[in-house]
Amino acid sequence: MNAPDPLNFAARRALPEAMLEALRQRFGDRCSTALAVREQHGRDESPIDMPPPDAVLFAESEDEVCFVLALASEHRVPVIPYGVGSSLEGHLLAVQGGLSLDVSRLNRILSINAEDLTVTVQPGVTRQQLNNEIRHQGLFFPIDPGADASLGGMAATRASGTNAVRYGTMRENVLGLAVVTACGERVRTGSRARKSSAGYDLTRLFVGSEGTLGVITELTLRLYPLPEAVSAAVCFFPSIDAAVQATIQIIQMGVPIARCELLDAHAIRAVNAHDKLGLREAPMLLMEFHGSPAGVAEQAQTVQEIARDCGGEDFDWATTPEARSRLWTARHHAYLSALQTRPGCRCVTTDTCVPISRLAQSINESVCEVEEAGIPYFIVGHVGDGNFHLGYLIDPLQPAERETAERLSAQMVARAIRLGGTCTGEHGIGLHKQAFLIEEAGEPAVAMMRSLKAALDPLNIMNPGKIFSGPR
Amino acid sequence: MNAPDPLNFAARRALPEAMLEALRQRFGDRCSTALAVREQHGRDESPIDMPPPDAVLFAESEDEVCFVLALASEHRVPVIPYGVGSSLEGHLLAVQGGLSLDVSRLNRILSINAEDLTVTVQPGVTRQQLNNEIRHQGLFFPIDPGADASLGGMAATRASGTNAVRYGTMRENVLGLAVVTACGERVRTGSRARKSSAGYDLTRLFVGSEGTLGVITELTLRLYPLPEAVSAAVCFFPSIDAAVQATIQIIQMGVPIARCELLDAHAIRAVNAHDKLGLREAPMLLMEFHGSPAGVAEQAQTVQEIARDCGGEDFDWATTPEARSRLWTARHHAYLSALQTRPGCRCVTTDTCVPISRLAQSINESVCEVEEAGIPYFIVGHVGDGNFHLGYLIDPLQPAERETAERLSAQMVARAIRLGGTCTGEHGIGLHKQAFLIEEAGEPAVAMMRSLKAALDPLNIMNPGKIFSGPR
Repeated sequence: MNAPDPLNFAARRALPEAMLEALRQRFGDRCSTALAVREQHGRDESPIDMPPPDAVLFAESEDEVCFVLALASEHRVPVIPYGVGSSLEGHLLAVQGGLSLDVSRLNRILSINAEDLTVTVQPGVTRQQLNNEIRHQGLFFPIDPGADASLGGMAATRASGTNAVRYGTMRENVLGLAVVTACGERVRTGSRARKSSAGYDLTRLFVGSEGTLGVITELTLRLYPLPEAVSAAVCFFPSIDAAVQATIQIIQMGVPIARCELLDAHAIRAVNAHDKLGLREAPMLLMEFHGSPAGVAEQAQTVQEIARDCGGEDFDWATTPEARSRLWTARHHAYLSALQTRPGCRCVTTDTCVPISRLAQSINESVCEVEEAGIPYFIVGHVGDGNFHLGYLIDPLQPAERETAERLSAQMVARAIRLGGTCTGEHGIGLHKQAFLIEEAGEPAVAMMRSLKAALDPLNIMNPGKIFSGPR
Repeated sequence: MNAPDPLNFAARRALPEAMLEALRQRFGDRCSTALAVREQHGRDESPIDMPPPDAVLFAESEDEVCFVLALASEHRVPVIPYGVGSSLEGHLLAVQGGLSLDVSRLNRILSINAEDLTVTVQPGVTRQQLNNEIRHQGLFFPIDPGADASLGGMAATRASGTNAVRYGTMRENVLGLAVVTACGERVRTGSRARKSSAGYDLTRLFVGSEGTLGVITELTLRLYPLPEAVSAAVCFFPSIDAAVQATIQIIQMGVPIARCELLDAHAIRAVNAHDKLGLREAPMLLMEFHGSPAGVAEQAQTVQEIARDCGGEDFDWATTPEARSRLWTARHHAYLSALQTRPGCRCVTTDTCVPISRLAQSINESVCEVEEAGIPYFIVGHVGDGNFHLGYLIDPLQPAERETAERLSAQMVARAIRLGGTCTGEHGIGLHKQAFLIEEAGEPAVAMMRSLKAALDPLNIMNPGKIFSGPR
C-alpha cells in the first residue's frame, strides 16, 4: 500500500520498562506482551502490514483508562484505543510503537431512556449488542457499517453505512460523550438534550477524530422507534447510470427511503455464488422503506414509478423478515463474497462520496479505468448519499497489480474531490489517506487540524501518525 | 443583567489611529466611526448595555475580510463579526472595544444545486432571502429561528427554531464553510458531499463558535424539496402537562411532525390581542405536518388520537396557506405581543432544553416559581425538541424585578442541567450565560474549549470575551 510518512517510523517510541512494570503491578495479566495478543491488536481490516504495539492493556473501567493515559503521558508513550479491530484504513496500527488500549471489556449499556429515545453506553458495546438489548422496547439504533463494530470505534471513525440516507451518520446520532484526554482527565461533552448551543461542539470534534484526541469512554446516542412497517425491494437496471438516475429522483422527490444500495453485476455474481441466490446479474438497487403500512406502500409506489421511468425492471418485494434478512445478509457479504471469486486475492477498497448529481460520472469513469486496466472488481454503494465502494481484487503476489489498483484508486479520489466530494465517505483517513486529505481539505485546513491536535495532545501520544503525520 | 466578567473591561483594547488610517485608505467611507453606526452595531436583542465598538467596517468581499483580519492581527485589535444583529445573548457587544466587521453586504447566493439539494451562499444572505430565491425551484431551507437572521449568524450561534424537530438545526444542515481565520487566512471546511470521514469536523467546530474562532465567509447548506402537502393544526389542553404528554407520545410513535410548538395561556392572550385572533386562552399545541397528501392525513389522524387521549380539545385545522401563515405569524409575534401586554416592560428570555421526559417537570416547576414571585410571564416552546422559552416581563425601572427574574432564570437553568439538559437550546452563550456553561459542561470541558480558542486565535482578537472570558 501507499507507504505512510517514514517520519512515523523514525519516531518509534518504545514502551519503557518502568511503565510496563507499573501497568503489570496494577493490571496483572490484563497487561499483555504476548506476541499473539500484540499481533491481533496490531492490525485492522486494511491491507497494511506493520510491527505490532509493544503491549496490550485490557481496561475494565473509565478510572483505569484515566490511569493508563496519565502514565502514558508521564512516559510519553503512544496509546492506541482498540475496539473490535474492524477499521479499514490502518487506524489501529502501531506506527510509533506504544500501547494498544483495548476497551472492548467496557461493554455495558449504562442506561436506556425509552421516553427520550436515548441510550448511554460504554465504548466496547457493539451495534448488534445494543440492538439486541433495545429491540424488545420497540427501539433501534440505525447506524450499520456492515461489521459488528464497537460503538466507540464507530464514533471515532464517524461511521455510517446503509441507513445513513434516512437516519444520518454517527455525526448526527451521538448526543454526547465522555472522553479521557491525553493527560488522563475525564471530560464530558454534550448532554442528553436533543440540541444545544452551549459552547464549542466538542462532541463533533471527537466524532471522527480516530483516537487522536483522547479515548471515548461513554457515548449517549439517539435511538429511533422500530418502524411499524418495513419493506425491502430489489430492482434491476440496464446500466449503472439508470440506477443512479432513479436514486437521484427518489432523493429529489423527498421520498424518506431508509436504505438505497447499489450493487453492480460483479457484486451480484459474487453474492449469488456465496449466498446461493438467483439474482439477475445486472446493476441492482436494493431498497428498504420504513414507516406506517400506508406510508411504506406510498413510498413503494412512488419509487416503483420512478424506477420504471428510468428503465428499471423486475421490481421484486421482500416483505417477510426472513426474505429481507436474506437480502441484507447477502449485501453485507458482498465484500467476502467478492474475495472468493478470485482465490488468494486481497481487496483494495475505495470509499469516495460525491454530490449525488456527480455520482454516475464518478462511477462510470472509474469503471472505464478499471476495465481498461483489466483488474477484477466489484461495486457496492450507499448511493442515496452519493457514497460508493469500488473493490479491486488484486493478486498480492503481483506487485504490479497492487500498484495499478493504487493508481486507479488515486485517480478515483482525485475525481471525487474535483466533483465537489470527499476522499472518504465513512472509512476515515487513518494511515492510508493522509495525502488525499491534504488534496481535499487544503493545507490551511489540515494545518488547523494539526493545531487542534497539538492543543489537546501536546505530547502527541494519542494514536500518533494517524490522519496527519505528526506536527509540522 | 448579570455583569460579565469585569476582566473584559480591564482588557479594553482601543483601535489605534494607524489601523484606522489603513482601513480608511482602503475602504473610504465603508469604514465608519459615526456614533449612530457604532451604536447600531454595539447592541443585539439582549437587554445588556455596553459602550459601542470603536469603528464599523462594511466588507464587500472575502478578500476584504482577509485584509481586515490580517490588519487586526497586526494591531491586536478585537474584531466582532456582525450580520443583522438579531442575536440574543450579547454576542455582538464590544466588551473589549475594537472593530465591528459587518458582513451583511456579502449577500449573494453563489450557487444552487437543485439536483443535490445544496446551496452555497455568502454569510449576509438572510434565511428569507434564501427561501424567496429557491422557492420557484421547489426547494426550501427549513431552519427558522423566528427573526430574519443572516445565515452566517445562524451558523455562528447554531440556530434552530420551529422546524428543528424534523429537519435538525444548523449543526445538521451546514455541509461546509469558508472561514477567514484570526490571522487573515482563508480555510475551507467540508465539501458538498452529504457525509465525510475526512479528518476533524472543522465545520461543526465553527458552527456555534459565536465568531470567536474566525469569520464565516461562505456556507454550503442542505436544502429540502418543498413538501407536496402541508397542514397545520391547533389543539388545546387542560394543562401544560397534558400538552407535553401528547408531544412525548407523538415523538415516541415516530410521527415525522415538522413543527410542534407550545404556547401557554399568557402567550395566547398576548397574540390574540396583537394579531386579533380568537384562540382559546389555554395551553395550546401548534403543529405542522409535511409530506404526501396521504402521509399528512395519516400523521394528522395519529396525532389527533394521541391528543384526544391526553385530554386535548378543539382540534382545528389550517390547510390553506393563508390560514397557516396567520397562525405562524402570530407564533413569531409572541415575543413582541407579550411585550405589549405590559407597557414599558423589557423581557428577560430564557432558553433551556431538556430531555423530553423531563420537559413537563421543567416547565411546571419554573411556572410555580414565577407565579410565586408575581412577575408577569409567558411561555413558548419548541417542545418536540424539549426546548422552551420563558419570558419574564419586567419593569426596567424596578431593579428588584430584574434581580428576581435573573434569580428565577438561574434556578431554571440549574434545573435543566440537573435534568440532563442544557443551559441554551438555541440562543448561545454570548456574554450572559458564561457561568451557566461552566455549570453545565464542567471546568475540564470549558478548559478544553479555551485551549481550542487559544490554538486558533492566539492573540484573542476574534470576538473576545464571549463564551468564556479570555484565557485563564
